Amino acid sequence: MAPASSAGRPAGAGQAAGAGQAAGAGRPAEGGQRRYFDWAASAEPDPAALEACLPGRAPFGNPSSQHREGREAREALERARERCAAALGVPAQSLFFTSGGTEANCIPLYSALARQSAGRLLAGAAEHSSIGENMKALARLGKKTGSIPVDRSGRATPELLRAALERHPDARFAAVMAVSNETGAISDIAALRAALDDSGLPPVHLHCDAVQAAGKIPVAPGFWGADSASVSAHKIGGPRGIGLLYLRRPLEALCLGGGQERKVRAGTENVAGAEALAACLESRAAPERLAAAAAEASRRWGILLGGLRKIERCRIIPEERGGPGGEGGPGFSPYILQAAFRDIPGEVMARALDDLGFAVSTGAACSSASRERPALAAMGLDDALALEGIRVSQGWTTADGDIEALLGAVSEVLKFL
Amino acid sequence: MAPASSAGRPAGAGQAAGAGQAAGAGRPAEGGQRRYFDWAASAEPDPAALEACLPGRAPFGNPSSQHREGREAREALERARERCAAALGVPAQSLFFTSGGTEANCIPLYSALARQSAGRLLAGAAEHSSIGENMKALARLGKKTGSIPVDRSGRATPELLRAALERHPDARFAAVMAVSNETGAISDIAALRAALDDSGLPPVHLHCDAVQAAGKIPVAPGFWGADSASVSAHKIGGPRGIGLLYLRRPLEALCLGGGQERKVRAGTENVAGAEALAACLESRAAPERLAAAAAEASRRWGILLGGLRKIERCRIIPEERGGPGGEGGPGFSPYILQAAFRDIPGEVMARALDDLGFAVSTGAACSSASRERPALAAMGLDDALALEGIRVSQGWTTADGDIEALLGAVSEVLKFL
Repeated sequence: MAPASSAGRPAGAGQAAGAGQAAGAGRPAEGGQRRYFDWAASAEPDPAALEACLPGRAPFGNPSSQHREGREAREALERARERCAAALGVPAQSLFFTSGGTEANCIPLYSALARQSAGRLLAGAAEHSSIGENMKALARLGKKTGSIPVDRSGRATPELLRAALERHPDARFAAVMAVSNETGAISDIAALRAALDDSGLPPVHLHCDAVQAAGKIPVAPGFWGADSASVSAHKIGGPRGIGLLYLRRPLEALCLGGGQERKVRAGTENVAGAEALAACLESRAAPERLAAAAAEASRRWGILLGGLRKIERCRIIPEERGGPGGEGGPGFSPYILQAAFRDIPGEVMARALDDLGFAVSTGAACSSASRERPALAAMGLDDALALEGIRVSQGWTTADGDIEALLGAVSEVLKFL
Repeated sequence: MAPASSAGRPAGAGQAAGAGQAAGAGRPAEGGQRRYFDWAASAEPDPAALEACLPGRAPFGNPSSQHREGREAREALERARERCAAALGVPAQSLFFTSGGTEANCIPLYSALARQSAGRLLAGAAEHSSIGENMKALARLGKKTGSIPVDRSGRATPELLRAALERHPDARFAAVMAVSNETGAISDIAALRAALDDSGLPPVHLHCDAVQAAGKIPVAPGFWGADSASVSAHKIGGPRGIGLLYLRRPLEALCLGGGQERKVRAGTENVAGAEALAACLESRAAPERLAAAAAEASRRWGILLGGLRKIERCRIIPEERGGPGGEGGPGFSPYILQAAFRDIPGEVMARALDDLGFAVSTGAACSSASRERPALAAMGLDDALALEGIRVSQGWTTADGDIEALLGAVSEVLKFL
């Protein structure tokens, strides 16, 4: 793996700081080399996406303009949409470019306000803050809301969903993430869809936060039957500022403007971003590439889990993942793993590893400045264990040697803490 | 001026189409050369912004992450914020990165929902659709709204604002664009601020859509005393997907998430976009550069107005701009001009000019697929004249020869239509 933080960038200030601090810890990062294990927060740039972003490459015209410059931009945008659709296995007209995953999660949520729908909104208890915080905001505005509990892996199951619907038969919207951004646990969205369809209730809109899924696990056909789903480019090597909202049927958005994206998402369309996202999805989401990369990732996670199992103070979260077969399998994404180390706050472990040249996180980057771990609490972990959790996430440049180095660094830290 | 639509891009399909169609019109575009007069829809890329966007240049870490990659991204983001602030003459902590101008207009508007404020929202009658359509959406949600009439130039004056406040003393929010995206008319935001302050009413939040102002006319100090203002990067040569919201005081946003941008705008921060926007603002908004460019633009607009005045069927909108001194002056931006040609729908004129190699528009790109011209109607233009209007907008690569060629092309079109 290349020194990640300086890949392709001019040599800059701050390159040596972390390495220097590591010197006393017995296993200094060689030459300031960094090993990046926070792909779930933001991926290293995909070379194909970088090429798509080459300055001046995308047409600069406004896709809403009627002149040639505008038409060229419109054509480029629609080509990008078709390429994304082909990679994701959904119709092009079901995809709407957004500014990222958060906006793609917000649009279906706030559509309930736009439609002045009286139905209750449910969301998984361990959703990302781009769902969770907006559920609270909607509740403050008087919308009826409710929670779908998750199991000890962070998974919403059909049983848990059915129980939530029994408590809340007025539910007309349910948001469940496909892959837990904390543990990598995969919720079976198709089974949740079936549970909704079989509930005997009026239709419930099923929204799926697929930000940790697209480009990593198969999402076809049609995001497992969800009514809407969100995708973020920068989680799979694309630039910030671009994402996708999948909509099985058109939807009335709250925020409007110039009518772009068929009134689902207003604002001049980010053509260069759309092209970069298309390039990423072609690199990552096409079924055969995705399967090969996932098999490799799962194998590497096997090395990591094997090593962690040997560390007495380590506890894999959830524990069921600690056993053989927990690497990837049907139940977990092979890109994300959560582990706790007895008597070491996750924040301390993450900082110690950072000093040694390893980037890991304590949960979602968005919330990493907070000391609370609401997603882990929702999984039933006691507070002490939740605070000891660190999240390790990998990507396509992660090598076996990086995993072994990480295991070595963890052991070093445990000697001193 | 370089052949704009192909600048820096691989030779692509569609380059020859327009030129071919122009061949019969007496003044074919030479070698397919394009002359771009739709900078108000989207500017040609600024070379400084392109350099900032060089692939892999911006740190790829998530600015919310605590590790070194995250801290590097955070530092880059905050440096970009400081550079934007210096160029705009406002404090860095008053600037919040958004996904563009539309979002920067939406956040203050929808804050009224978040705060469940009972106050009435007013907006200028000729605002861009990113304000106008959201005012309608808020009215559908039961918010009290109202209109601030504009004069025949598209300007909201203190007198018109005072009259609106007399009708609506319950107003607590007023949105007025600094520069009309249709006519270039400049509203005196400082005078509107004073009118609000002197009204004897409780404080009214003044929001200023500064999308056609920033980088083109001086906005310091503090966006003329507005409480909030919006800036879009791609109108001044930056990429799509990045903009700024200026806030004199923090504000409670409706849409939430991971707490980025101090809870004003959720979603992983677009560091590369922020750096590109900073580069654009340094190129364009720094006072001495801005003044020199505006003087040049005003001089070129003098050539255009002089030529148009000689065309019997041409009517400058507003007519007062047709006289000497109407080029730029205190009342108009020297970058936007609206003109109508008797008995020729604007759409037809724009298409004929496009065939001859000239990109002009019929009003805001966002609404250019629509046949209505609500902004012009709000200015009191009769429907027939409004439908004959075309918008011409220029930028830093526009040359005197482009203006002369445009005048020649208009004359050619008038011979045949």
